Amino acid sequence: MKEPFYNFIRTLQDTITKKLEQVDGKALFKEDEWTREEGGGGFSRVLENGNVFEKGGVSISAVHGALPPAMQTYFKVGDLDFYATGLSLVIHPLNPMVPTVHANFRYFEMYDKEGTVMDSWFGGGLDLTPYYLFDEDATHFHTVCKSVCDRHKVANYADFKQKCDTYFHNTHREEGRGIGGLFYDYCKATPEFTMEDWLAFQMDMASHFLDAYVPIVEKRKDLPFTNAQRDWQEIRRGRYVEFNLVHDKGTLFGLKTNGRIESILMSLPPRVQWRYDHQPAADSEEARLLEVLKNPVDWI
Amino acid sequence: MKEPFYNFIRTLQDTITKKLEQVDGKALFKEDEWTREEGGGGFSRVLENGNVFEKGGVSISAVHGALPPAMQTYFKVGDLDFYATGLSLVIHPLNPMVPTVHANFRYFEMYDKEGTVMDSWFGGGLDLTPYYLFDEDATHFHTVCKSVCDRHKVANYADFKQKCDTYFHNTHREEGRGIGGLFYDYCKATPEFTMEDWLAFQMDMASHFLDAYVPIVEKRKDLPFTNAQRDWQEIRRGRYVEFNLVHDKGTLFGLKTNGRIESILMSLPPRVQWRYDHQPAADSEEARLLEVLKNPVDWI
Repeated sequence: MKEPFYNFIRTLQDTITKKLEQVDGKALFKEDEWTREEGGGGFSRVLENGNVFEKGGVSISAVHGALPPAMQTYFKVGDLDFYATGLSLVIHPLNPMVPTVHANFRYFEMYDKEGTVMDSWFGGGLDLTPYYLFDEDATHFHTVCKSVCDRHKVANYADFKQKCDTYFHNTHREEGRGIGGLFYDYCKATPEFTMEDWLAFQMDMASHFLDAYVPIVEKRKDLPFTNAQRDWQEIRRGRYVEFNLVHDKGTLFGLKTNGRIESILMSLPPRVQWRYDHQPAADSEEARLLEVLKNPVDWI
Repeated sequence: MKEPFYNFIRTLQDTITKKLEQVDGKALFKEDEWTREEGGGGFSRVLENGNVFEKGGVSISAVHGALPPAMQTYFKVGDLDFYATGLSLVIHPLNPMVPTVHANFRYFEMYDKEGTVMDSWFGGGLDLTPYYLFDEDATHFHTVCKSVCDRHKVANYADFKQKCDTYFHNTHREEGRGIGGLFYDYCKATPEFTMEDWLAFQMDMASHFLDAYVPIVEKRKDLPFTNAQRDWQEIRRGRYVEFNLVHDKGTLFGLKTNGRIESILMSLPPRVQWRYDHQPAADSEEARLLEVLKNPVDWI
C-alpha cells in the first residue's frame, strides 16, 4: 500500500505545483529536499510573491523509524515502529477575494519490532478559507468533494463534511476556520471495505483537488479590492495562525517531535495583522462571513 | 495581601499608561472593563497606531471562584476555590530599533471550601525583545532588574535571570524570544521570608518597570530605519506569536479556561510576517541578534 501511494503523491506534487505555477504566471516553486535523522525525509516546495499566490507550499514526506514517545502516548501504544507518508499543501493568495486552501492526504503504518504491520490507515481532506464569501464558490468546492465521495462506497460526504467543520474550529473564538470541505482519519480495512477501497478513494480525492480549487482562483483573481479588504484578509489570516498554532494536531505534533520546522510552519500566512477587538460593521460582507463561520452551512 | 496588591496594581496601571501616552505623544489608551461570569473581571487598556507604539496593552484583572478543572489538574489539587490578580503588559513599538517589552506581576491564592487559605504565592517578571540589538540597552534593562533584586533579600537576580532565559525560549526554533530579564513564580512564605517580603519585592520591581524600559524607548524611537529593517521586525514578531501561542502557559491557560479572548491575545503584534526559511545575511546585525538569542548573555 505504501509504495503505490508514495509514488502517487510524488507525481501529484508535480501536477499540482505545475498547475499552480501556470495559474500564477510569475512565481515558481523552489524545492528543498530534507532528510530526517531518525529515518526518511521529504521534498518541500514553496512559492512566494507571485502574481496570484502570495505564498504557497506543496510538500511530500515519507518518514519512518521508532515511534516517538509523544506519539506512543497519543496513539496509546507501546514501543512500535512506524511509517508515515503524505502530501500537504496550503495556498495563500494575494487577492482577498480568492480563498486560502489547505489539503492533506496521508497514510500511516505501525509495526512491531519484527516488522509485522500492526495497524495502518489513511487520513486527509481539504478545506477552504474565504475572506469574502461567494456562495457559489463554496458550493463548487463542496460539490467536487461530494462527487468524489459519491463514487466510492467507503466515503461518506455528509460524515466527512461534518468532521471537517468540527475539526477546523477555533474553539476559543467559537468560529470555524473556513467554510469546510472534507476531513477523514483512521480509515482502515473493515469486514465490508479493504485498504484498496480506501486507497482508491484517497487517490481520486487528491487527484481532484485542482478541480475543486483552481476554477475559484480563476474566477476571483482579477477582482478589484480595497486596502480595507486587504486589511480584513490579514486580520482573518491571524485566525488561521491561531488555529494552526493552538489547535492543529499535525502542527503541534511536528513542533513537539522534532520535525522540520520550516516545512511544518510553511502553512503560516505571509502577512498577518492582529487588531484589538476588531469587529466588522453590522450587515457588512465581513459580518456575513463571520455569521457563516459561526453556523456551518450545508453548501449542496 | 490581596487587597494591598490589587490597590497597588490599579494605581500602577494608571502610572504606566499615562507615562506611555506621554512618550507616544499621539495615541491614547482605550479602556474596556469586563466581568467574568464565574467571578471577578478586569480593566483592559489598549493603545493602537501611535507615533511610537504601534500596539500596546496594559491590563489588570482580579478573578475568583471555583478552580477550573484544567487548573486543578495543572496544580495537582482537588476542588478548591481561587483568587488571582495581576497586571500584564506587552508593548509593540513601531520603530524596529525600539524593543518590544512584556511584564507581568501577579498574585494567587487557593482556598478550601470553608474559605481557609491553603496556599498563596507571587509570580511575575519582565523581559525585553529587541529586533536590533544595542548591547547598552540590554545592560540597562538588566541593571534595573538587578538593582531591585539587590535591595530585597528574597530576590535572587542570577536565579530569576536564568529562569527568564529558560522560560521565554522557543524550543522549536532553539532560540530565546528575546534578551531576557526576570522570571519568578511560586514565591511563597518560607521559614526565612514572609509574604510581606515578597510583596515588597514585587511592588518595588513593578514600580521600576518604566525605569527599565522608557529610557530605551526615548533613546531609539527617532532612529531612522529601512523597509528591510521593518520587514525583519515583522518576521521576528512572528517568533513572538509562535512563543505566545505554542509555549506560553498563561496564554494557553486563558484560551482553555474560557478567559476573555481579546484581553489574552492583546499581546499579539499588530503586523507580522512569515517567510519560508528566512535567514539573515552572514555577519549582519540580524545574524548577530540570532547568535545572542541562541546563546544567552550575562548583560551585567
